[in-house]
Amino acid sequence: MRVLGLDPGLRRTGWGVIDLTDTRLRHIADGVVCSDDSLSLAERLVQLHDGLRAVVAAFVPDAAAVEETFVNRNPESTLKLGQARGIALLVPAQAGIAVGEYAPTRIKQAVVGTGRAAKEQVGMMVRTLLPGCLVESPDAADALAVAICHAHHLTTRSRLDQAVRR
Amino acid sequence: MRVLGLDPGLRRTGWGVIDLTDTRLRHIADGVVCSDDSLSLAERLVQLHDGLRAVVAAFVPDAAAVEETFVNRNPESTLKLGQARGIALLVPAQAGIAVGEYAPTRIKQAVVGTGRAAKEQVGMMVRTLLPGCLVESPDAADALAVAICHAHHLTTRSRLDQAVRR
Repeated sequence: MRVLGLDPGLRRTGWGVIDLTDTRLRHIADGVVCSDDSLSLAERLVQLHDGLRAVVAAFVPDAAAVEETFVNRNPESTLKLGQARGIALLVPAQAGIAVGEYAPTRIKQAVVGTGRAAKEQVGMMVRTLLPGCLVESPDAADALAVAICHAHHLTTRSRLDQAVRR
Repeated sequence: MRVLGLDPGLRRTGWGVIDLTDTRLRHIADGVVCSDDSLSLAERLVQLHDGLRAVVAAFVPDAAAVEETFVNRNPESTLKLGQARGIALLVPAQAGIAVGEYAPTRIKQAVVGTGRAAKEQVGMMVRTLLPGCLVESPDAADALAVAICHAHHLTTRSRLDQAVRR
């Protein structure tokens, strides 16, 4: 099963693709879709939409997840992030892919083992869990962390389903 | 010139289309695109996207404008609204239409003459400025008010351009 993780932002939206076979994870690709801040807000959202649509078309994920947004910062930032997040949720759903949502603490818990991990720890654990991947951008590392968290959730759910069926 | 106004909301996004000939306004159509709150957030955003895309395809506007969002309410609402607003900005931009943005006070100023007008006054003035339109939904009335505000702005800008050229 191929899982796409997304870390939305208006200026930079991180994305990461991993494969899940049984309980093993494999890094496939990661990157960042940027928007040009000299353009209008609407044009920037089109850039994000086009970029993410290209990622979905190139890697054909079976599942996707998006990081839930902090809402306790300043409201202007919350609104901007909300607009970018709308696009991140829209694109996989348009391709018929179910989209999970995870709070930042839950993602850190899944990847590092504690909900209070620092950003650098997340990046380091992502590189450990996905051997061979470089992940130069922190946004892409966060997106891979979202994908790992979703993969854990899917594995647990599938085990529960099997246990119930027995 | 045909102008589309949008009043975004996750549950209900109002839309209104008017024609601007010289300085005269004419009501063309209005309505509301709803999302089903039993679906996931991502699926609801797809519903808004599909609905608004159908409106743009049916009425082929030359210009569009979206109401700016209050950001001083509770942050959860701001985020939800931001996500819906992202879709409202995206759809016309995907069709190559420039999208204006207006603060609620500026829209009320353009339609009623004061930035502190009540919602009912906006609806009443929209019906007065666009004779023959019924506008049963308050969301559609707000969307028509956005379109009227944008039409005023475009008229003023075109007059200024003409004055400069003389």
